[in-house]
Amino acid sequence: MLIVKKFGGSSVADKERIYHVAQRCIEDYRKGNDVVVVLSAMGDTTDQLIAKAKEINPNPSKREMDMLLATGEQTSVALMSMAMGAMGIPSVSLNAYQVTMHTSSAYGNARFKRIDTERIWHELDSRKLVVVTGFQGVNKYDDLTTLGRGGSDTTAVALAAALKADACEIYTDVEGIYTADPRVVPNARKLKEITYEEMLELATLGARVLHNRSVEMAKKYGVQLVVRSSLNTAEGTIVKEEVDVESMLISGVAVDKNTARIAVIGVKDTPGTAFKIFNILGKHNINVDIIIQSIGREGTKDISFTVAREDVEEVLALLNEHKSRITAQHIESDMTVAKVSVVGAGMQSNPGVAAKMFEAIYNAGINIRMIATSEIRVTVLLDEVDADKAMRAVHNRFIED
Amino acid sequence: MLIVKKFGGSSVADKERIYHVAQRCIEDYRKGNDVVVVLSAMGDTTDQLIAKAKEINPNPSKREMDMLLATGEQTSVALMSMAMGAMGIPSVSLNAYQVTMHTSSAYGNARFKRIDTERIWHELDSRKLVVVTGFQGVNKYDDLTTLGRGGSDTTAVALAAALKADACEIYTDVEGIYTADPRVVPNARKLKEITYEEMLELATLGARVLHNRSVEMAKKYGVQLVVRSSLNTAEGTIVKEEVDVESMLISGVAVDKNTARIAVIGVKDTPGTAFKIFNILGKHNINVDIIIQSIGREGTKDISFTVAREDVEEVLALLNEHKSRITAQHIESDMTVAKVSVVGAGMQSNPGVAAKMFEAIYNAGINIRMIATSEIRVTVLLDEVDADKAMRAVHNRFIED
Repeated sequence: MLIVKKFGGSSVADKERIYHVAQRCIEDYRKGNDVVVVLSAMGDTTDQLIAKAKEINPNPSKREMDMLLATGEQTSVALMSMAMGAMGIPSVSLNAYQVTMHTSSAYGNARFKRIDTERIWHELDSRKLVVVTGFQGVNKYDDLTTLGRGGSDTTAVALAAALKADACEIYTDVEGIYTADPRVVPNARKLKEITYEEMLELATLGARVLHNRSVEMAKKYGVQLVVRSSLNTAEGTIVKEEVDVESMLISGVAVDKNTARIAVIGVKDTPGTAFKIFNILGKHNINVDIIIQSIGREGTKDISFTVAREDVEEVLALLNEHKSRITAQHIESDMTVAKVSVVGAGMQSNPGVAAKMFEAIYNAGINIRMIATSEIRVTVLLDEVDADKAMRAVHNRFIED
Repeated sequence: MLIVKKFGGSSVADKERIYHVAQRCIEDYRKGNDVVVVLSAMGDTTDQLIAKAKEINPNPSKREMDMLLATGEQTSVALMSMAMGAMGIPSVSLNAYQVTMHTSSAYGNARFKRIDTERIWHELDSRKLVVVTGFQGVNKYDDLTTLGRGGSDTTAVALAAALKADACEIYTDVEGIYTADPRVVPNARKLKEITYEEMLELATLGARVLHNRSVEMAKKYGVQLVVRSSLNTAEGTIVKEEVDVESMLISGVAVDKNTARIAVIGVKDTPGTAFKIFNILGKHNINVDIIIQSIGREGTKDISFTVAREDVEEVLALLNEHKSRITAQHIESDMTVAKVSVVGAGMQSNPGVAAKMFEAIYNAGINIRMIATSEIRVTVLLDEVDADKAMRAVHNRFIED
């Protein structure tokens, strides 16, 4: 059996934890498995390197930043291989050049294009435990690239796909994917299984444990993932294409407090206005979530939408710059909102989910300000102060009952 | 003009010094020169990485150690390129893979085999300042190697040779090569020029500023070196094939206190004994310096030689192990000795140098215990306590007079 195992930065933060991870990998190796380990940079190394760079140049070239950051994972894999050596197991560390992991040329946000497997197979064939740098790749200019935050998950999935691995295990500091954030909802349950689609919709839950792009890639190449704890041997959560029909209607409830509402008030009620607004934002890579268009006064309409809070300043600047083109009377923003979502593949065949959710929130005495739905998700926007209470109410109604 | 400039770890130890180095490189760049900068790891990064490795594994694989150490220079070059960017100069950092710098496969002690110049030319042609990692290479297995301590000097020379550079400048924290260690001999003079041969013989002086292997390579490829200070713009010392005939008879006086005397007493006076002794040591990569063979008692002889102090333990163990084979009665060691040498290309045509040196040491009331000479060097072994005094006497006689 060929197993790809990925460990994050906190799992390799010091000597003790490096040995702990080495031990877990060696257990699988000793059973006769081929083991490929993907590692992130140790602890907060990446943040430290970024701080060092910003000290030198507040706005460093992305190419040079990737050159710098790539040293973090190279350090991890070399030290891990040394630990395995100390434990008497033949191992070899490989960086992005050695593998080679080919990516697009977008420094800081590269995507895998192709992974050569020859070197890894060669090392596995000579019964070595192979330790590979996560997060990094090489582009067509022969320059180092990085995949963006959480990129090591994507490296693990990409390697599992390229090697046709039998298992891809993502180790983290939680035991798996929960129906809600256990810090907010004490009764949150660990899911045994979840679909790729649900996982993607549960981004705010998943972000803590799985990078969205890795889930997209796993879905695309049919790589079944296991999310489990690096601290104990509890069974984790399996992320796959389809889950048992008997599984819960709702797989999770998520809160996203990193959201703000933008309202463009009094635009002319003519075709193309919405297109103009979202075209401007799209060109600047600003992700827009819930969109509501309502009728305003005297032949005008109001267009509201949500964006991530870090984008608010830029959005306001852009819209004010194009104010006359988009025929807006004025533009408002509200940073005191939050999104609560229920996600579940089961809701496709159960039309009552949205109503049930609204009822739970109504019973908790909370006002809903906007609503958006997808095939497997219902999201409401409400005041941030009500968010946790709403999540508990919804979780209680769907999952605990 | 194409200039290769090399800066050591202390020259790039912090933000201020990185900017200082960037400034010096940019001055040459602005004059229209092509500039290639070779950097070591910042400050004591390499020592810190070694300590980290030893904490994980007291006896780490050399291959993994090189994988780890190579991150040090990669960090330096990325940060340097960011500093140049902040100063508005287009630049690019390159590691051993990107150049590519091909080496032998001896991890920790690799030698350059070939340096590809295509990428560097490409970057220079687009008027970029090119910042290259010193100390590291890539072997035929596509693994990272390192060149051993001081290897960045060798990288600079190898690049200068491969690029047929017009100048190769080695920046250091002293102003050049001196006739003696200025800390011991206050009247020591900075040399304007010195030959490769002299530089090699002055290893103990040169070790502080130039790695021997880099001098050998410079000699082999005819690369003229300039050793100068990174702290000021004083003219440095030029290292080249031949110097002015009018230059001094003696270019320098050196003391080496890292030496010990080994005496193999009472070996049989038959052919092959010396061969056996030095063959054993050679097989274990132990460098032997001065060798003296003297007649002992009753048809035996004594063989004495000097080795570096860190090798004494191993030498004694090896010789005792083979004691009967080398027919030794007993083996002694003495760690209280030092070597004083005078070096000068001029002495080839001036036979009186050795006598003049012995006279100076005799006048200082110091006893000489062993003597060795080469074409351009005379070395005496004496008690360590007398070493500095002897050096001053010799320096005074040859250089100050």
